[in-house]
Amino acid sequence: MISNKLKAVIRDVHDFPKSGIIFKDITPILLDAKLTKEVVSALAKDTEHLNLNAIVGIESRGFWFGIMLANELGIPFIPIRKKGKLPYKTLSYKYDLEYGSAEVEVHEDAIQKNWNVLVHDDLLATGGTAKAAAELILMQGGSVAGFSFVVELDFLDGRAELLKYSKNIISLTNF
Amino acid sequence: MISNKLKAVIRDVHDFPKSGIIFKDITPILLDAKLTKEVVSALAKDTEHLNLNAIVGIESRGFWFGIMLANELGIPFIPIRKKGKLPYKTLSYKYDLEYGSAEVEVHEDAIQKNWNVLVHDDLLATGGTAKAAAELILMQGGSVAGFSFVVELDFLDGRAELLKYSKNIISLTNF
Repeated sequence: MISNKLKAVIRDVHDFPKSGIIFKDITPILLDAKLTKEVVSALAKDTEHLNLNAIVGIESRGFWFGIMLANELGIPFIPIRKKGKLPYKTLSYKYDLEYGSAEVEVHEDAIQKNWNVLVHDDLLATGGTAKAAAELILMQGGSVAGFSFVVELDFLDGRAELLKYSKNIISLTNF
Repeated sequence: MISNKLKAVIRDVHDFPKSGIIFKDITPILLDAKLTKEVVSALAKDTEHLNLNAIVGIESRGFWFGIMLANELGIPFIPIRKKGKLPYKTLSYKYDLEYGSAEVEVHEDAIQKNWNVLVHDDLLATGGTAKAAAELILMQGGSVAGFSFVVELDFLDGRAELLKYSKNIISLTNF
């Protein structure tokens, strides 16, 4: 089962990026080319019924499986990046963090009106960034078809933040 | 021909990231799923004879085609990131820029001794970051099998900086 295989390789890194946090490092998955393909296949199987027109991947770990999934499904990939990183004209969305705020952007001509768009990121924690990505899709007249994650941290209940955008919230393994 | 198809969609953005720079925006390639697959196939065709064991992709635009190429070839993908972004223990390499310096890192257990490793990035400009990636491969006992880029800026002659690491320098389109 993919969940158990992922649990066997995802690495806990203590006190990253700051003291008290146990970070889930997914880079060991990428060292296992066979498992990487299984992850892409599992995400494709769980999302192909959504009739997606595009996938947005959140900088920068969300680029990894997001772009492989888009390539597997044969649909456009659209990067969502932190403010100031995308070169062309952008739409941006600002959101609150525990301390301070963050802002993410998408190219203003990337998402077409009425497109069904999946939000992909490596990990669902509190859901703040995924929610911001959903808002950017709506700002461009797209629909939020769902969310996919490699890892979901159940105890932070980010899922509750995302349900108002879509009931399709896919994660391959939960902690 | 792939070079002409790329030239038709790569977008010039003036004065990004700073005044006087004409930035080559490759995100329109990613909006065209068919062309994206052609780019991955072209990179695979140009690199499959190198008997690669792994690909390192440079943060963060180098993640895009780097990881799709690794997935296509069925080999590990290893992210190289700016200092402080990788969670686990790292090796790092510091290099000079026109003004100041930069530092990139790789997880210390990612590259195995004697592996043939390809460096991938979206664009070859002066070659400083690609060179730093090559140094990180050598520090881990790997061999630099070559370099691949989607775009090469001929007038900056970054190629000259990289030849001492490998004569295999592949770029799909040149400006």
